[in-house]
Amino acid sequence: MELRKFSIPEIIFGRGSLRYVGRCARRIGAEKVFLVSDPGLEQAGWVDRLTETLEEEKLRWVYFNDVVSNPRDLQIEKGAAVYRRERADVVIALGGGSPMDAAKGIAVVASNGGQIRDYEGANRIQRPLPPMVFIPSTAGSGSDITQFAIITDVRRKVKMSIISRTLVPNISIIDPLVLQTKTRKLIIAAAIDAMSHAIESYVSNIASPFTELLSLQAIGLIVKHLHTAVETRSLDSLEQLSSASTVAGMAFSNAGLGADHALAHSLGGMFDTLHGLVHPVLLPAVMRFNLPECIEKMADIGRVLLGRRLGSSEATALGGIEKFEEFCESLEVGVHLKEIVRDKSELPNLCKMAVNDACLLTNPRKATCEDLLQICEGAW
Amino acid sequence: MELRKFSIPEIIFGRGSLRYVGRCARRIGAEKVFLVSDPGLEQAGWVDRLTETLEEEKLRWVYFNDVVSNPRDLQIEKGAAVYRRERADVVIALGGGSPMDAAKGIAVVASNGGQIRDYEGANRIQRPLPPMVFIPSTAGSGSDITQFAIITDVRRKVKMSIISRTLVPNISIIDPLVLQTKTRKLIIAAAIDAMSHAIESYVSNIASPFTELLSLQAIGLIVKHLHTAVETRSLDSLEQLSSASTVAGMAFSNAGLGADHALAHSLGGMFDTLHGLVHPVLLPAVMRFNLPECIEKMADIGRVLLGRRLGSSEATALGGIEKFEEFCESLEVGVHLKEIVRDKSELPNLCKMAVNDACLLTNPRKATCEDLLQICEGAW
Repeated sequence: MELRKFSIPEIIFGRGSLRYVGRCARRIGAEKVFLVSDPGLEQAGWVDRLTETLEEEKLRWVYFNDVVSNPRDLQIEKGAAVYRRERADVVIALGGGSPMDAAKGIAVVASNGGQIRDYEGANRIQRPLPPMVFIPSTAGSGSDITQFAIITDVRRKVKMSIISRTLVPNISIIDPLVLQTKTRKLIIAAAIDAMSHAIESYVSNIASPFTELLSLQAIGLIVKHLHTAVETRSLDSLEQLSSASTVAGMAFSNAGLGADHALAHSLGGMFDTLHGLVHPVLLPAVMRFNLPECIEKMADIGRVLLGRRLGSSEATALGGIEKFEEFCESLEVGVHLKEIVRDKSELPNLCKMAVNDACLLTNPRKATCEDLLQICEGAW
Repeated sequence: MELRKFSIPEIIFGRGSLRYVGRCARRIGAEKVFLVSDPGLEQAGWVDRLTETLEEEKLRWVYFNDVVSNPRDLQIEKGAAVYRRERADVVIALGGGSPMDAAKGIAVVASNGGQIRDYEGANRIQRPLPPMVFIPSTAGSGSDITQFAIITDVRRKVKMSIISRTLVPNISIIDPLVLQTKTRKLIIAAAIDAMSHAIESYVSNIASPFTELLSLQAIGLIVKHLHTAVETRSLDSLEQLSSASTVAGMAFSNAGLGADHALAHSLGGMFDTLHGLVHPVLLPAVMRFNLPECIEKMADIGRVLLGRRLGSSEATALGGIEKFEEFCESLEVGVHLKEIVRDKSELPNLCKMAVNDACLLTNPRKATCEDLLQICEGAW
């Protein structure tokens, strides 16, 4: 086995764990916190609950909520200016992937200077970041666990992948109670995102014994609990989704992703789509493309999705892909690329951007721009 | 699920990864390193290989090797005095459980003052420790991964369990090449130690979805690869043992251990035994004692050890215990307590100490001093 690295934050997981935020911030040296969240979480009362824990620790804070879905470079630079002006010392993010990734971007620019696009790609961040405590409000992005941040470069219309070990937060506080106020659509989009993290990381060309079982665990948990979570909103099933998202985050942060995410980032940059709903469209086509390079591993995924092996590894692998498609259809999400792109003439441009995404480096089968185009045609 | 915490170091795993030690020490702020190792590793040339990486980074260091198997309180306090006198700023340990635990103890006393016995038990360390980079030379103790340090209080003849999140090293560098110079006996003792970590953590009353699969993964790897590793010394099989020890460490650091380790610490304190060789004696009796409280989980362990389920959960669980006993016998290690203790009249004293060990808190079945005595009688 070649060299493998594995890095995750300290994790505090469980119902009501939000109450530890202040104590954790204090422990990692906070005096004045830079808090990132969004209006939805304010309205649901979670931001107040969080700031109460800061008050208990007699911490000061500055609040920043100028973040949209698929956060943008200009918002990052604006946030970094506020961070510096207010002389904050610790970053806390409460939210889904967008506020968390925005918080990471702000931490980078505030401590390393320049603009966020200077750090696009892998391992471009030189100086240490302020300590970070993240609290995910969805069970999906894994940003609270991972060394990934995805920020949109508005001018180029591209979602940049910024990957660096230093983007792993110090502490992730995962409180399944926070999921209860999310819409059906967001729960589904987040869970499918986590599923795609698990599937892509499992077949990644740098997967390791430290990541493989985590990937399979996440797949199994999501296929078992997502329907119940959506239908009943039971805390037990939401907690299982949180658990799945967390272990999928541990896996993909350290094993990387693949062609599905490379394309998803380009799609998101060009069309501002809800990230989680891109995978039902793209991932089956990517899995079929990758199959010849990793039949046994795809069969492992099939076994978990189907709950059993079929006659051969290839049959199990293909059965798994079909099961994933059925699973997405049963959730009533779109499964055709034309529903997002509308005009086929956009595809070459889309693939030209995707081929430069850092996520493509760990795809198990080498994919050229033409290959990506064929994948998109297959998903059309 | 109640609150669960999960904390592990950054991990760098692979053949030749020892070369990153200097760079890692530099990255976490080292100017002058306090390096702990032992004469065996000096002779095998590993200490020189390590200090070369410090030289490459132009780091200064002070070397400390006054550590015996089952490290003692006085050695810790001596080491802490050297650390302070030399104004070191980062602790590096290269070794098995003894040098690594000694290094942790030295880090505690150097930064928190007092004597090491002041910190016995769980969560007694208040102030931050110096950053730590650990390189295990055996695949067993998991000290490079865990929040545990075990130090002998010579006066009381007890191995103290010191447990604190702050004892998790910053970086663990796991290089399977280092295992090649170990004796047959040490490889076996270390692997059985890792197996016992995996078994006890799996049935622990604070096991979680973040630890359970890791425990089972470690059990499977050790039963599959230990014989080959001992017979052939192939790098592939040694690497599998390193991997097993690492994931077992992740599991038990966060899920805790049980009655086997509580007794093993007392035995080690009274008789200075090689820790890993205590488990073949005690663990089967502990597993039989715990069985009524966790039949399904013990059946999972049995399934992994046997490679299949038997007719019922209880049969699978019992079959697993027998398989563990056969496995130990096939390695030609002692399996009777009388070979270590010799005089039965020592048992009540042994159990009186064990009942106060912090490891007993996470045993799945509550065990009184009388219960422990009965376990010891069963293992006699």
